[in-house]
Amino acid sequence: MNQETICAVSTAPGAGGVAVIRVSGTEAITICDTIFTPKIEGKNLQNQKAYTLRYGSIRRGEELIDDVLIALFRAPHSFTGEDTVEITCHGSVYIQQQILQLLIEKGCRSALPGEYTQRAFLNGKMDLSQAEAVADLIASTSAGMHKLAINQMRGGFSNELTKLRSQLLDFTSLIELELDFSEEDVEFADRTNLKQLATGIEQLIRKLADSFSVGNAIKNGIPVAIIGETNAGKSTLLNLLVGEERAIVSDIHGTTRDVIEDTINLSGVTFRFIDTAGIRETNDTIESLGIERTFQKLRQASIVLWVIDLNTPAEQIEELAKVIIPKAEDKKVILVFNKSDLLSSDELKIKQQLLCNILADRIYISAKRQENTEVLKQHLIQVAALPEVSQNDIIVTNIRHYEALTKAHEAILRVINGLEMNISGDFLSQDIRECMHYLGEITGQISNDEILGNIFGKFCIGK
Amino acid sequence: MNQETICAVSTAPGAGGVAVIRVSGTEAITICDTIFTPKIEGKNLQNQKAYTLRYGSIRRGEELIDDVLIALFRAPHSFTGEDTVEITCHGSVYIQQQILQLLIEKGCRSALPGEYTQRAFLNGKMDLSQAEAVADLIASTSAGMHKLAINQMRGGFSNELTKLRSQLLDFTSLIELELDFSEEDVEFADRTNLKQLATGIEQLIRKLADSFSVGNAIKNGIPVAIIGETNAGKSTLLNLLVGEERAIVSDIHGTTRDVIEDTINLSGVTFRFIDTAGIRETNDTIESLGIERTFQKLRQASIVLWVIDLNTPAEQIEELAKVIIPKAEDKKVILVFNKSDLLSSDELKIKQQLLCNILADRIYISAKRQENTEVLKQHLIQVAALPEVSQNDIIVTNIRHYEALTKAHEAILRVINGLEMNISGDFLSQDIRECMHYLGEITGQISNDEILGNIFGKFCIGK
Repeated sequence: MNQETICAVSTAPGAGGVAVIRVSGTEAITICDTIFTPKIEGKNLQNQKAYTLRYGSIRRGEELIDDVLIALFRAPHSFTGEDTVEITCHGSVYIQQQILQLLIEKGCRSALPGEYTQRAFLNGKMDLSQAEAVADLIASTSAGMHKLAINQMRGGFSNELTKLRSQLLDFTSLIELELDFSEEDVEFADRTNLKQLATGIEQLIRKLADSFSVGNAIKNGIPVAIIGETNAGKSTLLNLLVGEERAIVSDIHGTTRDVIEDTINLSGVTFRFIDTAGIRETNDTIESLGIERTFQKLRQASIVLWVIDLNTPAEQIEELAKVIIPKAEDKKVILVFNKSDLLSSDELKIKQQLLCNILADRIYISAKRQENTEVLKQHLIQVAALPEVSQNDIIVTNIRHYEALTKAHEAILRVINGLEMNISGDFLSQDIRECMHYLGEITGQISNDEILGNIFGKFCIGK
Repeated sequence: MNQETICAVSTAPGAGGVAVIRVSGTEAITICDTIFTPKIEGKNLQNQKAYTLRYGSIRRGEELIDDVLIALFRAPHSFTGEDTVEITCHGSVYIQQQILQLLIEKGCRSALPGEYTQRAFLNGKMDLSQAEAVADLIASTSAGMHKLAINQMRGGFSNELTKLRSQLLDFTSLIELELDFSEEDVEFADRTNLKQLATGIEQLIRKLADSFSVGNAIKNGIPVAIIGETNAGKSTLLNLLVGEERAIVSDIHGTTRDVIEDTINLSGVTFRFIDTAGIRETNDTIESLGIERTFQKLRQASIVLWVIDLNTPAEQIEELAKVIIPKAEDKKVILVFNKSDLLSSDELKIKQQLLCNILADRIYISAKRQENTEVLKQHLIQVAALPEVSQNDIIVTNIRHYEALTKAHEAILRVINGLEMNISGDFLSQDIRECMHYLGEITGQISNDEILGNIFGKFCIGK
């Protein structure tokens, strides 16, 4: 294990009233003592009790850098599990930089992204899925994201996985015991019971894996593709939907541009709009390139808003439908008839017959006049149909976990299949162990540097 | 005094690893106890010792908001002098908002800008000039600004003022004692000694007031006006000077747009460029409107870069000089001859004679080819001639202080004048008291709601 003492600013970047610099590692206390002058003489940090605060100043030689407050933690009772000093200084960027520089001169190293949390994991303060939840918690911008992250951080998901692993361990013990006595041809475990056990495990894993669609929708927003011919009014509609709400989202500092781009929060549900290329009509045939690009994007969506200019000839729309509908079979498609303001009510009545035997879900708007967009928003929430989530629900939000669960699920299905085929114990055992392996990857019982690098590299520095 | 308990996020806005929420006031501890669940049962905040930390969670009823660390301070041993609780939570914006909302539900009020520091002032933890230094310290982005702010915050300036006021008090006591015995026509105080005392005070006040030009230059940058005719190359030069450095300045999050606009830091000296309208030539006469606008801006500058296109006819430049030179008498004017790349060396020699009997300080550049701009930068630093400032120098950086010192100086000059004119004691005493009044305004011994509102309204929220 890396025993270097690390330092970083843990509060949000920029100037604030105060900032917190975190120093963690075996030398944290002795290094900080070399730069800290306590207000009351003799009250140096080495003699300071854990979980107490001390007032004083940080100096470079004679030069005063700042008056600070020092919080002291001693291993293992700290976030990282190491000796930790937290320096609360005045929040100017200049002071933050000066103190960091001074710490580095005295032997600290700049912390890598997520290194505090990584050390907490390596020191057994939390498992890997809990560590990942710390990053999710910090990034959470909605009640839904917050609920899921905090439950995962508190170990809800980990407990579920521990239970599963212990069941699998019992299972494999029984099988492997049989193997030890295989020459005597005894059957310790009743095959029916084993099947029940495996089926129970399979159901649990499936339930967890299935929850990812909800978890992902909450965490990343429900993907909505807006498709349609060029000039149907896609962009106007997108701006209308995203417009005013975008300002609210971007009020939250620190969320990155690409996250806030084209995302809206309607009644607590986040929708993420996927831009598609306009489908272009050339010589009455649909341009194949445009539609191909649109379909690529379409795959990521769970809801499709197909924007149709009401003034388009009916045949053209029907032709397009023949191409689009088969590709969107597993999606919720909403027809959005635009430019309703340009039609008389009689014309509108005729157009309302369009495609109604194939796609009943439709709405008539005028993006230009901003008519009916509120109705469309309400309809989106309805179609999204996200279940109410409580703080105790176990919901998978992380694609790494989802992939591991999918592999674990495949393994347990092989076990069930094997039991039905009366396959030999050593094959069964191998699949059970593979299932355990994938579950262990989630909590970090099984891990390697590459996995850890991937996970903690995405953290912010200072956490 | 306002006894409401206030709350605000004290760390920089946005998401970070952690954030600190500060709660201050008589109810701080009891309010926080209603939302805090200690990790170890029974360890509530009311029984917690001052200057200690406690781990636990913040909950709204059953719902967990976050796991937090609580730092506790008891009056008067806190920044504000009141009971104070500092909550360190995970730094998501959502969590910060939730905890603030919860505190407000339980009876806190959102802190106004600078309200913590204002309370520290009202509770006698610091005087007004120290409180102002807190804001300067947080805003400081250079070593110079930091030095001045930290010295002022530590009370260097306040001590100087206290000494002055005590001298003035001795002075006025002597005079007023005489007044009490005026009918007996005695003279307690030797007039020569009084004059010496007054002159000493006058010199000190003048020295402080004079230091403002340095203090202001360090704090706000040395104002440099770039003037010249349209198309002389002012904008190109400005971009060249500010160009790459601007990126470094804007790296500092939280500095406002208008502060970073057109400011550069050269070898620790900050220059602030003032945009001027291009002077336009119409029918061979100088357009009066353009030059008037330029002169308005010119007044704010201490250095003037007069950019001259070397291809302009000599007569035109000389005519312009007649208008500009008288207006820039108290400024340091540098002639910047631009577009030197377009001239032959012979032509250049002739042009070098231009105005050389009036303005010797000149430099030849090609803004387009980026020639000699480094030389210009070095020259700017030389011309700025900012003295080296140590942490112990008393330097006035605040225009409010400067104005008060100027008024105090006028009053003490009247005292000296009065002594020379053998004016009666009651008039002398009145001027001495006026002098003391203005010095007292700086430290806040004399203050009113309007002054306080002006000062603390400019702070950030949370400090």
